[in-house]
Formats: sequence, C-alpha cells, structure tokens
Amino acid sequence: MKPEVELKELLLKKRLKLSTAESCTGGLVAARIVNVPGSSEYFMGGVVAYDNSIKMKVLNVSPETLLKFGAVSEETAKEMVLGVKKLMNTECAISTTGIAGPTGETPEKPVGLTYIGVSVGDRVEVFKFIFEDKDPDEVARRNNRRRKTAKKALKLLVQMLKEEK
Amino acid sequence: MKPEVELKELLLKKRLKLSTAESCTGGLVAARIVNVPGSSEYFMGGVVAYDNSIKMKVLNVSPETLLKFGAVSEETAKEMVLGVKKLMNTECAISTTGIAGPTGETPEKPVGLTYIGVSVGDRVEVFKFIFEDKDPDEVARRNNRRRKTAKKALKLLVQMLKEEK
Repeated sequence: MKPEVELKELLLKKRLKLSTAESCTGGLVAARIVNVPGSSEYFMGGVVAYDNSIKMKVLNVSPETLLKFGAVSEETAKEMVLGVKKLMNTECAISTTGIAGPTGETPEKPVGLTYIGVSVGDRVEVFKFIFEDKDPDEVARRNNRRRKTAKKALKLLVQMLKEEK
Repeated sequence: MKPEVELKELLLKKRLKLSTAESCTGGLVAARIVNVPGSSEYFMGGVVAYDNSIKMKVLNVSPETLLKFGAVSEETAKEMVLGVKKLMNTECAISTTGIAGPTGETPEKPVGLTYIGVSVGDRVEVFKFIFEDKDPDEVARRNNRRRKTAKKALKLLVQMLKEEK
C-alpha cells in the first residue's frame, strides 16, 4: 500500500490533522497526500519554503539557526516541522530540506544530503539521509532524489504513527 | 519546451520572483517549478492551502468571500493569488482552486470546475476551466485533472509574461 494511503487510514482512525513544510521536495509531499481522495478530512495544507526568507517569515525558522547550521541541517528541519504545526494547528507534520543538486554542495554537505523532520504530538524526530541516484542525467538525478525524499518522508510518518499507542 | 523551463528563462530575464497558492493541485505547481535546476533564483515558495482555514489564515482570503462564493470561485482564486504575492513578496504568482473529484460537486459546481489565478505586477486574471478526463478509474481522473490544472497554470503565467512589454 502506498504510504499516503496508509496515512489516510491512520490519521482518520486517530483523528489527527497533518501539515507539511517542504524545501527540496518543493510540494511533492503535499501533492502525494492530496492524490488520495478524501485527504481534505485530515490534510490542512503545507508551505513550500524554498527561499530562506520564507523559512523565516512563514515558518518562523530563526535567522541564527540558518546562519549557524545552514538551511540543510537537522536544526532547520526541526524548526520547519514545528513551525508548520503551529501555523496550521495540526498534531502531525513533515518537513524536508536537502541538496537535490546538481549544484549546491559544499565541502561538508554533499549533493543528496537530506534531513526529514517528522512530528506526532509532542514527539519530534529528524532523520538524516544521503540519497544516491545513478541516472546518467543530472536533472533526472535531482528529481529522483526529490521523489525518494517525499516517499521516505511519508513512510517515516506512517512508522511514527504506528509506534504511537 | 516544458512551461516550467520557459518560465525560468522569462523570470530570470525580467528579474521577477514567483510564488504559488494551491488548493486542488496540492503542491503540483510548486513541484514542477522546483523540478528545474536553478529555480531557487526566482521561486520563493508556495502555500498549499487545502483547508479553508489555511486559505483565510495564511493567504488572507476573506471569510465573506468563502461564504458568499465558495472556495472554488473566481473571487477566491483572486484573493489567493494576491495573498501569496503579498506573503512572499513576489511580482508574479499562480493560484489554483477546483473540484478534482470524485466527490465535492454541487448543483452549480461540477467535478472538474477549476479556477486558475495568475498575476504579473499589477495585472491579475482568473481563468475558468472544466477539466474533463476519460480514465475509467475515478482516482486516476482526479489526479489527471490536477495534473492538467498544474500544467495549464504554468502555461498561463508564461503567456502573461510574454504579453508584458
């Protein structure tokens, strides 16, 4: 079963609402959630915070966090997921921030480095990945990484919901 | 050429920034924009305002508009596009609101009815469509309509940018 379909069952059963805060995936997580008919019952909405100014202004990520740790960091992913939960008044949320490529890498942060934030109630976790892709085309690699990130984010939320009592 | 690639050329040349406000497409417009490497130079971000409370709270759509005309209306599409331009401080924006189905239709508003708002500078236009789809599966029809809406929205912005002096 697709994770977004499993999410529907879990969120309806637990009567929880969901929101998303996306950087590198740029709307792919929200779009998959909305693929499921009836998603309006539990999905409130999301923010695509592509530019750092939007991460700060709309999601309330602190300028100090962005300066000290960068946009692609555990700290930013955490502030994004908490920011969108508050903005949209939901119990659950997902955030994504990563270097999809082909450009954007730094000595410390390779292309593919991605942080996914997931929250259910008081629990908040950030997971770190380096998404590889072997497509010969660099744009395809970029977008395959973004798709993998979106799918993984949905799966991580499913897992956290299942771990809930 | 894909409209999102054409958009990149036009927006960079004109030095304009872009944001999106999506209801029925649920992130598909933003995701297509972000498919293009380098989109961070002109795409600030977007709001997926799936629930009406998010249309009001984040995009500043007025409760009176939602009550009088409904979420799927020319008026709401217009307020969404203006709301996200202001929130994200961009010269250009796209909004979408529609009945993707399979449920949600009313006597006056059939499944497929969609409004797309497009703005460049002081110009704001809302276009009305009824997107048909012949896929035998109702979920596929829902998502084909959403994809058609996203593509059309990008094309409409390309067109408006080309009409600019």
